[in-house]
Order: sequence, then structure tokens, then C-alpha cells
Amino acid sequence: MAGLPDDKVLITDMSRYTRVFDLSEAPDMVGLPSGHISREELRKIVPGSSFELKGKRYFLLPCDLHDSILLSLKRNTQIVYPKDAGYILLKLDVAPGKRIGEAGTGSGAMTSIFSRYVGSEGRVYTYEQDIGLVRHAVKNLGLDRPGTNVTISHRSLEQGIDQQDLDAFFLDVREPWKFIRQIYDAVKPGGHLGFLMPTTNQVSRLLQNLLKYDIWVNEIAEILLRDYKNNFGRLRPEDRMIAHTGYLVFARKLTPGSYAPYRQETPVDEDDGELPDQQ
Amino acid sequence: MAGLPDDKVLITDMSRYTRVFDLSEAPDMVGLPSGHISREELRKIVPGSSFELKGKRYFLLPCDLHDSILLSLKRNTQIVYPKDAGYILLKLDVAPGKRIGEAGTGSGAMTSIFSRYVGSEGRVYTYEQDIGLVRHAVKNLGLDRPGTNVTISHRSLEQGIDQQDLDAFFLDVREPWKFIRQIYDAVKPGGHLGFLMPTTNQVSRLLQNLLKYDIWVNEIAEILLRDYKNNFGRLRPEDRMIAHTGYLVFARKLTPGSYAPYRQETPVDEDDGELPDQQ
Amino acid sequence: MAGLPDDKVLITDMSRYTRVFDLSEAPDMVGLPSGHISREELRKIVPGSSFELKGKRYFLLPCDLHDSILLSLKRNTQIVYPKDAGYILLKLDVAPGKRIGEAGTGSGAMTSIFSRYVGSEGRVYTYEQDIGLVRHAVKNLGLDRPGTNVTISHRSLEQGIDQQDLDAFFLDVREPWKFIRQIYDAVKPGGHLGFLMPTTNQVSRLLQNLLKYDIWVNEIAEILLRDYKNNFGRLRPEDRMIAHTGYLVFARKLTPGSYAPYRQETPVDEDDGELPDQQ
Amino acid sequence: MAGLPDDKVLITDMSRYTRVFDLSEAPDMVGLPSGHISREELRKIVPGSSFELKGKRYFLLPCDLHDSILLSLKRNTQIVYPKDAGYILLKLDVAPGKRIGEAGTGSGAMTSIFSRYVGSEGRVYTYEQDIGLVRHAVKNLGLDRPGTNVTISHRSLEQGIDQQDLDAFFLDVREPWKFIRQIYDAVKPGGHLGFLMPTTNQVSRLLQNLLKYDIWVNEIAEILLRDYKNNFGRLRPEDRMIAHTGYLVFARKLTPGSYAPYRQETPVDEDDGELPDQQ
Repeated sequence: MAGLPDDKVLITDMSRYTRVFDLSEAPDMVGLPSGHISREELRKIVPGSSFELKGKRYFLLPCDLHDSILLSLKRNTQIVYPKDAGYILLKLDVAPGKRIGEAGTGSGAMTSIFSRYVGSEGRVYTYEQDIGLVRHAVKNLGLDRPGTNVTISHRSLEQGIDQQDLDAFFLDVREPWKFIRQIYDAVKPGGHLGFLMPTTNQVSRLLQNLLKYDIWVNEIAEILLRDYKNNFGRLRPEDRMIAHTGYLVFARKLTPGSYAPYRQETPVDEDDGELPDQQ
Repeated sequence: MAGLPDDKVLITDMSRYTRVFDLSEAPDMVGLPSGHISREELRKIVPGSSFELKGKRYFLLPCDLHDSILLSLKRNTQIVYPKDAGYILLKLDVAPGKRIGEAGTGSGAMTSIFSRYVGSEGRVYTYEQDIGLVRHAVKNLGLDRPGTNVTISHRSLEQGIDQQDLDAFFLDVREPWKFIRQIYDAVKPGGHLGFLMPTTNQVSRLLQNLLKYDIWVNEIAEILLRDYKNNFGRLRPEDRMIAHTGYLVFARKLTPGSYAPYRQETPVDEDDGELPDQQ
Repeated sequence: MAGLPDDKVLITDMSRYTRVFDLSEAPDMVGLPSGHISREELRKIVPGSSFELKGKRYFLLPCDLHDSILLSLKRNTQIVYPKDAGYILLKLDVAPGKRIGEAGTGSGAMTSIFSRYVGSEGRVYTYEQDIGLVRHAVKNLGLDRPGTNVTISHRSLEQGIDQQDLDAFFLDVREPWKFIRQIYDAVKPGGHLGFLMPTTNQVSRLLQNLLKYDIWVNEIAEILLRDYKNNFGRLRPEDRMIAHTGYLVFARKLTPGSYAPYRQETPVDEDDGELPDQQ
Repeated sequence: MAGLPDDKVLITDMSRYTRVFDLSEAPDMVGLPSGHISREELRKIVPGSSFELKGKRYFLLPCDLHDSILLSLKRNTQIVYPKDAGYILLKLDVAPGKRIGEAGTGSGAMTSIFSRYVGSEGRVYTYEQDIGLVRHAVKNLGLDRPGTNVTISHRSLEQGIDQQDLDAFFLDVREPWKFIRQIYDAVKPGGHLGFLMPTTNQVSRLLQNLLKYDIWVNEIAEILLRDYKNNFGRLRPEDRMIAHTGYLVFARKLTPGSYAPYRQETPVDEDDGELPDQQ
């Protein structure tokens, strides 16, 4: 699988300092806030335990995919946040054995999640037109290692998609409405489509263009994650939160001719009616 | 895998009517809003296409896990919603090959998600003390079929957990603080713990009790999902939304003695300071 | 003042039944869920106390403006919700003695709030092009009584605004971008402008048109109100909430020529950068 | 009225710099980011217009109460945010002519809002036990000037409240449950009570204690304000927002004996039932 944090550890003081190290690539001496420690010593520490370095205590844990994405994927572009990624997984029905398409690859956050969850029987096909991002993903996700289940293509979707009968396709590009035909052709009937966009203008334009296809839009959503402070006697949310990452649109492909002719006109607007009582 | 919607289809009019049918269990004649259609006819319809029945058009799609959970799991207890389930997957680092513990089984929503994502190499151990819910889960998730990767136990966690070195444990019970010792012993060092509770009082009490263990709480969160209306020219959120399902607490097990002695006192309260400027 | 609930009382069983009665208009016998009670008896009940009627207890309270708007304004159109109305008051700097303009009048919810808060020294000028709504507001808000501080005009803003040097103007109409010139001319330099719209398309179009004027947009916002259940031992939010009422845009008028020539080009887009770390 | 920004102006570059100056107190030469300008020159600038200082353009606007609170109230303690303050105004039915009690005074944000909205016919009675905050409020709100409608008392509520038959009382103190008796006695029957607290533990404890009184809790709420970026072609929320200021509890006083004897037991818990379908 791509992007697996095989040899990565998370070192934290459980306060301000938290970092991920890939011990197979770390330098001989690793710098921490209170001093240096050799890589070999780090390897000897039992994962899940703590150690002291010059008067300061650190905790060393196996790095999981969530940590790896949030803390170690070098971010040339915006990553997909876990709050969104988990929902995308379920809505696109990504699971062991599935074949998933994606564009663009970007920082590879979603690619590595797809890669892990389709497992060794499944496969991820990811498209990216920026050669720098392609190289970055190959290196960060280990796509040049044998046994990877990810195929990366340096190409715009305008040039077409090689696969057919994919189980799902996820689009995280600036102008997704340009590629609806291509992804429609690439997924199987009943297959899932997912889109992530930061602005309302993009959502409107995508929805307008989807109307021309045999595609059923079944959800348009945004997800908000609110963290709380760890203080049992004074429990309350954190002072600040991330207010917006992006809007999600989910849809399913229908067979040609099975939907478009029966689609109703633009849905009747119901918002001039009154809302129910507040109390 | 448990709970896989192998022979299930989703039939929808894309408006008010959406239902899931298991064609292996459906009656000979299936009732839809506009009339009846034989099961055999339904089987002949290409998934992803539409059909007409007495003047009304229906769409038939392969049922995915998300649909199956929301629409067909008979809900004897509250289900875990997809917005929460996806995040739980990522935070607990559930993935192919992992061994995951869970209590209680409840309606089996989370069990079926875990089952699918650990794949054929992994395994789910789920505990439920209500015999009715056990029977319900066995039937709904097909736990009596050969090849399932789920072990269900009719037992309270007070009686202990049979497994050791689990990768993660998820608790969705009324008094999770009573079972911290048991799940601590059942997961491996660095392993993940997850908790879901509806009330703030439960969160406070759980956090207070977790302080006694070598357990690092790394997130307390709630997730809000806001849907939008599908109207490209008048884009706006739905009028109403689900305001609350539950609070999530995530933590990791540290080796005995590696954390508790070094834990700081109850964190200093910082909320008397001022918030940053609003503008 | 308009819309004051002088002779109105709120009767509630503190559970499912809550209603507002205007005792000056109520019938001789008032119907409650458990039976009838005469208006004269209701008048004798001390406000803030309770009474029993055929085995059921009711509580009678003086009706305040908030109750009056939510419970008794007959809603021919969507009302402005209190969560929004309170913020509008502060952002438009509505206060005793101010002169405030408004269009459209609609159900009169915002009109009655403005009327109350500008007090006897201030004045509200409200415009409504639907004669039915004008009549409804005159009756409901008592605009035909002597001493009202509200002037209502049956007119579209296209025909102009009679006033000048208003302290603020609030627009709650379908196409607010059509009337920017009119409200710009009607408010004094430094005066406040407020807009309420249900859709993102409207917000975009309004913002685009405001760029042509010497108007400083200082906030675009939405407000969410989340209620909690009254259960001290199991504290948690209500299951459902109102997810959306409208978007608010606030701005201030600058003197002609003092802003437009110095306005920067459409703000540089900063959203391609990365968000701060989540943790 | 207290805290009125009579001689205050807001100077902004409409980007990063926004500040409030009280021209009656400003030094002879006022420092701005690009240089100094004399107070006399500032006085000559027409409010609502712009000026240039050493190549940089500034905009000068009359300062309203909202600006004054957010930008110029020196914050010794947390202020009440406008999103909360506006709703408090409406829920407590604060209006011209009303008599409102408050504790503690804190930074005086809420005091100045109450003062303005009760107008010259109304009055605000505010209690504060910290002498530093009392002095700060007297100075900042001009409570030592003739004609103020605010009475400030340096006293804890434990020592009692001098007033009776107040229209409403607002409590923003650390342990509000200690003073329920005092504020119950100080407001008139049917009068409004409001509470602001940062933590869930405080809300639980307050609700538990309110059960002992003839007080009807009619709302427990939190308010979230989400701002959007001013970019009509790429409309979307700001990246970050304030996630929490406090929880609001609103209640009304009933006459002694009219409620407590009839109160139901702790409300039956309904959260074990299922939520409605998400779709």
C-alpha cells in the first residue's frame, strides 16, 4: 500500500511539540526541543512508552495514517482534512478490493487513504497535471516501490482516463465541471462520484453542469469539526476552530438514458415558505 | 465480511421514497408506492438504471454500506452516523488486517463498518450484554454465516475481554468509565481507544477517570454535518439539520508507568484570558 | 412604538403548548387545550403566576417582543429570526433617537424591533410593494394608531426613497443589488447598510454590485443558534436545529469619491495556501 | 447614556489596521502606521470620507457602539461578544425605559449596551466586586459624568441587591448558582433572567439549582458566528472562526408557589430513541 507509515514514529511532549519521524530516513542524530538523541537510541524505545532527554519527557508512539497525513505529508497544496476524508471514504463506498480513480493527486493525502483502504486486492488510479506534485507524491507515498497499489499518471483529465468500470472517482480540482464526461465514462453504472471544492461559486457551477448527465446528486454537504478542551471540571470547546475546508458533492452514475429524460425541471423553490417554529 | 450488502439494492424515486431491499429475502411481489413488482423482474433490472411502474419512475442502484446502515439496519438502538463513523475509522487507524474490539454492539452499524474495513485478514471482536441486540446483530450482519470476520460475545465488559494486543477498542456504552481497565489491558501499547457519548456529563466523567491511567487523550470532538439544497441558482443549506449525535473522545494507550507519573496537574485554566479580536 | 405587546400575554403549559393572546382582542371565552376560560378571568390572573383549568396547569406571563414576534406575528412571509435580529440591531447601531429605513416590510418582525429600539425620539421608514403585506403590517403593528414612530410606504424602492441622512438602512428583498443607489443616497455618510438573503448566489451578486459604490463592506456572516436540552444530569444539544435562515452583509457608506478610486482590485485569493495545523 | 462613543472615530485602512480614537482624549499628534497626523486635522475630516498620509490612504468613520466594544474597551476580562449581546438584548426584552440589573460589570461591554438600549428613561444597576474593574468601568463608560443612567456598586451579590421589581437581571459570574435567591427577589414576576457561562459544568450546576425556585428556564443556547470572505467570485467562509464564547441560559421569574409545586420530575430522558433519518 502507498503512504503507509511503516517505519514512522510520532514523538510528542503532549503539549506544544508533536512531530513525525521516518526512522529509515532520519539523520544519525535527531534534534528535539531539549537536545539531540541518536536514531539508534530512538529505535530501541518501546513504541507506546516515554523517555527523558535533558530533563524533558517525550512520548514515542507508532505513527498512524492520520498522524502521517496531518503531520508529515509535506503540503505543497491544501490537504484533505480527516473530518472530510473519513466521510468521503464511506460515501464513495471505498473498501478492500475496490478500484478508485482520483484527480488531482495534490499532496497525496487522499491518495494514501484510498490506497490503504482498497488494500492489496484493490487499486487507486490518480491523475495529476503538475509534474512537481507528481514527483512529490511518488517520493512521499513510495509509489516507486514494488507492490504499490497506486498508479499515478502525469496528465490532465482532458486527455482522457485510461480506466473503465471504476467503482468510484474523486475530483479535487479547480474546475471539476470540465471533466464530468470523462469520469462518467470511467466509472461503472451505479458507481460513486465525489467532488471537493472550496467556494460556493464552484458548487453552483458544478451542479448546473451535472444536470446534463445521467448522474444523481445525492448529497451536498459541509462538515464541521469542533474540538473540546481536555479539562473535565471545566469542559468547553476550544476557543477557535477551522471554519471551512470545502464543500462536498456526492453523486452516482446512472446508465445512459435512464435519468436525464425523466429529470424534473429545476426543483421548485420552497424557501419562500416559512420555517417551523423555533421553539 | 459481516453486514456486506451483497444482494441488496436501493430503490428510489429521487424524491421522498428511498428504500433498501435484500433481494435474497424479499417476498415474491415487492410493494412500491405506485404498485407491486415481482422480485424476479427486479433482479433483471440493470443496477444503475431506472424503470417505470404504473406511471411512476424508480431508480435501482447497488446498495452500498452507507445506504445499508442508514436505511436498512433495523434500529433497536441509536446508530452511529456516517459523519462520525468515517472519522472514527481514521482516528482509530482501522485498516485491512487490523484487530478491533468494540462494545456494545448495539444495532451493529459500527460493527459492520469495522468488519468491512479490516477485511479478510483482520477481525472484529464485539461485546453486547443485551441478548436481543446480540440476536439482532447476528441476523442482520450475517454473523452466523461461514467466513465472517466478526466474533460477537454476549457479555458485559465487567466480565473481562478475551483478547489482548488489539489494535484499537471502541466503546459506545452508557458508562464507559467503568471499563477503562479492561480495554487498557486488551489493546497493545500505542493502540487506539475511542469513545462515543451523547452527554457532556459523560464526557466529564470519562475524562476524569482516564486521568488515572497511562492513557493519552489526544482529541475530544463533535462533528456537524450540514447539507445543502440541490439548486444551483439558489444555493443554500437545508432549513434544518441534525444538531447533535454525540461527543467523541480519542486516546492512545501508553506502557504502564510511562505516563501517569509525569502527567501534569489538571491543566491550568486559560479561559479567563481574552479571545483574539473578532475582526 | 409599533408592535408593542401592550395587552398581550403568553400562556404556556411549559411543554408542548405555548400561545400568545391579545386580551384586548380575544373572544369572551378563550379556548385552551383542556377547556375554555373567560377573558375576564384571564385578566385577573397575576402575570407571572399559574392557574389550573380542568386538571391542567397553565402559566401566564407578560408577552415580550421576542415572544410576540416568534409566536403571534402572522407570518405571510419568512420572519427575521431573533438570532439574526439581535445582531442586526448592534451592527446597524440602531438605538434610541435613530432614523432607520427598511425594505421590504414583510411580516413586520424587523420593523417592530426597529420601532421599539429607536424609541419615541427615533423613527422607522419602511417600504413594501405588496399591498397585502402593507395592510397586514398596519394591522399587526398598530401603525394606524396615534403616536406610532413608523412610517410605512406602499412602494417599490425603484420609485425612490423619500428620506435623506438616515442613520441606517436594512434591505430584506429578493434582488437587493437593484436598490444600492437608492439606499446609498438615503443614508448619511458613515451610515450603516444591512442586507439579509437566503442564497449564496444572491450574496455573490450583491457583493459584485457593491464594488461599484463608495461603500465599505465590513462583514459577511451567518449566525447559528444551537439549543440544549434542559437536563442537568444529561446535558446535551437538542437533536435538531434550524440550519439556515439567511446570510447577512453589513456595510458603511463613504462619501462620494472617497473610496471607489482607491479600492484595490478584487482581493487576491489566499485560499490556495495551506490552513494551519489542525492540532 | 454610559459608554456612548460621542467623540470617538474609527480609522481604518480597510485591511489590517483598524483603531478607535477618542478625539477628546487623543494626544496632539496621533500616530498611524505611515506617520503622524495632528488631532486638529483629524477633527476636520468629514466622517465617512478618506484621507492620505504619506502615501497611505485611511478611512475615518463615526465610531458606533459595536466598534467601541470590540476595538476600544480595554479588556481586563473577557467581553461579551456582539453575537451573544444582541440575542441577550432580545431575550431579556431590554428596551427604552426598562430597569436592568447586572453582575459582574467586568469590562463593561454589556453594561454599555444595556445603558444605551434602556435610554434616558431607563436605568442599569451593575454590581462588581473587583475594585479595579469598578474603576475601569467608571472611567471607560464615563459613569462619573452627570446624566449617566448607570448605577455601579462595588459589592458582591452575596451582600444583596438594593433594587426590586427590576425588569431583568443578567448574571455573568463564575458561580451564578450562588445568587439565584438574590436575583429572584430583585426582579418582578414575569421578569427575565439571563446567564452567561463558559463551561458545561457550570450550565449543569446552574440548571440543577434553578430547579429549587419558581423559575421557568425557557432556553439554553449557544450562538456561532461564521464570517465569509468578501470575494464575490470565490465566495466561501473564512478559514477560521471563534468556536466558543459561552453558553446562554434564559429564564423567567414566576410568583412564589406558582411553579415549584407543579414542576415535573427531572424530565424523562428521550435520547435513547432514534433520530429521524438523515436523508
